[in-house]
Amino acid sequence: MQQPQRWIRFERAGKTGFGTLEGRRVREHRGDMFAHPEPTGHAFSLEELRLLTPTQPTKVIALWNNFHALGEKLRLPVPAEPLYLLKAPNSFLAPGAPIRPPCCEGKVVFEGELGIVIGKTCTAVAESLALEHVFGYTCANDVTVADILNRDASFAQWARAKGFDTFCPMGPVVATGLDPSALTVTTLLDGAVRQHYPISDMRFSVQQLVSLISADMTLHPGDVILCGTSVGVGSMKPGSLVEVEIGGIGRLSNRFGQA
Amino acid sequence: MQQPQRWIRFERAGKTGFGTLEGRRVREHRGDMFAHPEPTGHAFSLEELRLLTPTQPTKVIALWNNFHALGEKLRLPVPAEPLYLLKAPNSFLAPGAPIRPPCCEGKVVFEGELGIVIGKTCTAVAESLALEHVFGYTCANDVTVADILNRDASFAQWARAKGFDTFCPMGPVVATGLDPSALTVTTLLDGAVRQHYPISDMRFSVQQLVSLISADMTLHPGDVILCGTSVGVGSMKPGSLVEVEIGGIGRLSNRFGQA
Repeated sequence: MQQPQRWIRFERAGKTGFGTLEGRRVREHRGDMFAHPEPTGHAFSLEELRLLTPTQPTKVIALWNNFHALGEKLRLPVPAEPLYLLKAPNSFLAPGAPIRPPCCEGKVVFEGELGIVIGKTCTAVAESLALEHVFGYTCANDVTVADILNRDASFAQWARAKGFDTFCPMGPVVATGLDPSALTVTTLLDGAVRQHYPISDMRFSVQQLVSLISADMTLHPGDVILCGTSVGVGSMKPGSLVEVEIGGIGRLSNRFGQA
Repeated sequence: MQQPQRWIRFERAGKTGFGTLEGRRVREHRGDMFAHPEPTGHAFSLEELRLLTPTQPTKVIALWNNFHALGEKLRLPVPAEPLYLLKAPNSFLAPGAPIRPPCCEGKVVFEGELGIVIGKTCTAVAESLALEHVFGYTCANDVTVADILNRDASFAQWARAKGFDTFCPMGPVVATGLDPSALTVTTLLDGAVRQHYPISDMRFSVQQLVSLISADMTLHPGDVILCGTSVGVGSMKPGSLVEVEIGGIGRLSNRFGQA
């Protein structure tokens, strides 16, 4: 097992870089984050850096109805296969950056989620080999305009309701060496715990998700699978601070509607 | 009005390039296709080049129920707003490349469509200014596993049914200087005309689509909006050749299930 590490991407003096987070220091690396990156010998304090999304995904896939607790609460049918949508790239947002209210009316909700970060290209990978293709894990907020989802009875508007600019905060790091089944997602709204649920409650495990989704779509290094959310989703008000925290990864903080 | 041109992207001797297509010759350019590209002085014959997707979109947005003729045939309700999904980037496919059968059972259908190619970044652009943000137009085939779409009654699987690897052929060129309302889309299956419909039958015009969608999602140069399809969609058999032809753009040809 590799040494657990926490990788971040950042901007400093107009240039992008990446490295490992150790306390409040970042050890800069060069090369490919997913394939033998090398330390440059430079280190920076977090305060010198502007954080970016932890990877640059070609796609972010988001699960629906993947937790027993939420499915049972909403009396949703048990899915026979992973049900998912795509988050638009314009929605990807860095830690600390503001979530912008959409230009339409409607309740905007937070959904704290675990993100699986792919490390190796995979197509139809077997479940038994799936974890070898996972680089690590991150925190995400799958922001959604709830009122748009089903307002057209003939067409569920998943891509649109979840695809507005800034609607997919991710980070602050990609953490490697974790056992995903032992993780717990906690979401705080203005400091109050609103979600607190175990990843072990997932209908489809990390291995199953990577195996089954890669049978449909080739997954590339940096791609992210959002595992879906559980009970406690709620709406944000202008100025609300939403924090998604997962032990071993860290805390992703974004404010809604304010810079 | 700029001089109409037909832009292609290509690979030659292991390097990617782009240029204008004039007859069977390509005049190579350098710089940014969307902002003052300059001729390099080199020209190649088409036979020397392997064509690529005409742009590298950050996203491809695909409309549903955007033609009166198909909506009326299927007795679909009149949409109050553009209804759309996202095509996964792993689905983007070059002209001439094979469409791969998915690893699941089910009928795979072609949908010939017009693609709007964005030329300037736009967010919530007014309808009256929308065409200034369009670079040109291309042909596309919005390939779909029809049987997946509605097999889960609780969740319409648009992203998945249309997101398999190679399910979004585009090209062969981006043509500038066209009046989109005068275009006609023709789709041929093994040489027989299966679709032949006018863009003037769209429920939402090019101007409306760019304006309304950019109010949800910032559009970037190279992004593509697939305008939706009309009557005549059908299924492909292994070995089928599907060609999508639009006057002024050209003919996009891809075979299903064979290299």
